[in-house]
Amino acid sequence: MYPDITLRLPKWIAEEVRSPALCLPTLEERMAFVIRLAERNIQEGTGGPFGAAVFVQETGELIAPGINIVVASHCSLAHAEAVAIMVAQQVCGTFDLSADSLPRLELVTSAQPCIQCYGNIWWSGLQRLVVGASKADVERLTSFQEGPVPEDWVETLEHRAPLPSIRVIQNVLREAM
Amino acid sequence: MYPDITLRLPKWIAEEVRSPALCLPTLEERMAFVIRLAERNIQEGTGGPFGAAVFVQETGELIAPGINIVVASHCSLAHAEAVAIMVAQQVCGTFDLSADSLPRLELVTSAQPCIQCYGNIWWSGLQRLVVGASKADVERLTSFQEGPVPEDWVETLEHRAPLPSIRVIQNVLREAM
Repeated sequence: MYPDITLRLPKWIAEEVRSPALCLPTLEERMAFVIRLAERNIQEGTGGPFGAAVFVQETGELIAPGINIVVASHCSLAHAEAVAIMVAQQVCGTFDLSADSLPRLELVTSAQPCIQCYGNIWWSGLQRLVVGASKADVERLTSFQEGPVPEDWVETLEHRAPLPSIRVIQNVLREAM
Repeated sequence: MYPDITLRLPKWIAEEVRSPALCLPTLEERMAFVIRLAERNIQEGTGGPFGAAVFVQETGELIAPGINIVVASHCSLAHAEAVAIMVAQQVCGTFDLSADSLPRLELVTSAQPCIQCYGNIWWSGLQRLVVGASKADVERLTSFQEGPVPEDWVETLEHRAPLPSIRVIQNVLREAM
């Protein structure tokens, strides 16, 4: 009676991931990976200039990549961070990326989350957020807006009591945006 | 290489909608409909006690219903409001529910949007938001939390300049929660 909502990563993602067990030990390597996704997304015409991915914090094992596929998928929620979170939840078979069976997971994102992705991260179960470009960078360098992200967004994520905190690391490879 | 994200409304939705051109002229009728979806979602064991729907503002024509399907679909984004928005965007064939080809659309939701749905509404293209229960009602009557929704959330939606404003109407059938 109503259409399913189906979100699908484009085929070129496989060329960027190459190995099904891609492992990137440093934060800089992980950020370089998501920036490459953002660039390729533009080159391929598959979406906006944003990339993200969910990794195992400790080892850098890639769980799920994400890119902005808003226009192609007819879905205003399909920002890079949201796609990475949703694919990771499918890969892990749970809505809760903090489930006891899972290692500690993080989201690495090429740019500071907008108001939508901020809320998506809040309930995702992710335990760390690693950010490249700032809101000011995004709004200066692109036509995209971030919306009313609160000034104290880092503090709210890091102090979510009674929920576990989400650690935030900013400015990783920021100059590469 | 990575699984698709597929979100699907449960089969019982068809019994609640009955007519493919369901039209509910008053706000109270629209709210009663989404409250019924919330109740049925609990009875059927398909998700949390939240319902929402996208309607044509002027006529009350139902574009898309939504319910919370977070647990069943392994997707922390699948709150009732988000599902209604995403299904509506599939029905309309665009990520922008303000597209010129569309009539003015609204989201009717059984409860005040949480921090995630607040952000989802921000970029959806919806032009009006009709709310039943308040954040305080939700947090008193259920085990669900709303997250750091800003105190001035109504004002931010109604004054999104340079984006079009999103009108907010609260407390419709609030006592029915």
